[in-house]
Amino acid sequence: MDLSAEETFEVLERTPGALRALLDGLSDPWLLASEGPETFSPKDVVGHLIHGEETDWVPRLRIILEHGEAKPFTPFDRFAFREKYAGWRVDRLLDRFALLRRENLGLLRGMRLDAAALARTGTHPALGRVTLAQLLAAWVVHDLGHVKQVVRVMARQYTQAVGPWREYLTILDRP
Amino acid sequence: MDLSAEETFEVLERTPGALRALLDGLSDPWLLASEGPETFSPKDVVGHLIHGEETDWVPRLRIILEHGEAKPFTPFDRFAFREKYAGWRVDRLLDRFALLRRENLGLLRGMRLDAAALARTGTHPALGRVTLAQLLAAWVVHDLGHVKQVVRVMARQYTQAVGPWREYLTILDRP
Repeated sequence: MDLSAEETFEVLERTPGALRALLDGLSDPWLLASEGPETFSPKDVVGHLIHGEETDWVPRLRIILEHGEAKPFTPFDRFAFREKYAGWRVDRLLDRFALLRRENLGLLRGMRLDAAALARTGTHPALGRVTLAQLLAAWVVHDLGHVKQVVRVMARQYTQAVGPWREYLTILDRP
Repeated sequence: MDLSAEETFEVLERTPGALRALLDGLSDPWLLASEGPETFSPKDVVGHLIHGEETDWVPRLRIILEHGEAKPFTPFDRFAFREKYAGWRVDRLLDRFALLRRENLGLLRGMRLDAAALARTGTHPALGRVTLAQLLAAWVVHDLGHVKQVVRVMARQYTQAVGPWREYLTILDRP
């Protein structure tokens, strides 16, 4: 696929609805399930994505456009959401994520990111030189990776319960 | 988690909405992407799940309740949907899946599947003796596995596009 900004927006605009469809109204045994300490529950994923809307993707995109490679991105804190959104119910988290994502995509669409903009470069604090196109692609894949994580964490609650079907269900394989 | 029928329905009833949120209105490069010959595109997954509603999960559940282990389940054709739904647009597939899933869950809720029903046993043609509870759990995990497949297939379209971010994005790892 030849990456265009609009093609990435197609996926980015769908993630809040996908997570809402999966998680809104779900009971706590599913929402709070995880794969062990320091891993994300389905509910945690929504908090993490909110924090990314606030501090990661769009701020980095602005740094690329305003400073190019001169100003490295601020490192992203993957666990900051835990304190920031402690006590929030999942429906409130889902609303907040949907609102911020909609606002961010509104901003991005207003920027009319053409091929020249997509080729602009910035400096990732650990990965070095990256393009704006790579940032958009990584944002899409990051979203999809966390949807994958949500369904994997949920599925694994039934690793024992599926009995003999285990061998057909590769989502239950340990990576 | 102690499996109850209602707990499995929580997930089963959400899958059509999750796939609709991800796929409805999406452009063909995303919808028709796959991981190679004989693998499913995101659109294929919806067809496969429809065929499962029609011929797999509920018919097998009925066999357990009506015949116990005496009558093995009919083997499921994972690719029959290709001919059956050739030419269907994704919105029509999503509508059909949502309708059948709603009908099937209505049927199941009417059966009031208690602990005794969940312990009933049947015969899988390849896996041997299975319980009704295992069938429900496998149905849930099968759903979640195919949602995972959809987002993985989509993400992999950007394996090159993410550039240096590749190392952070484990959804792009080959299994």
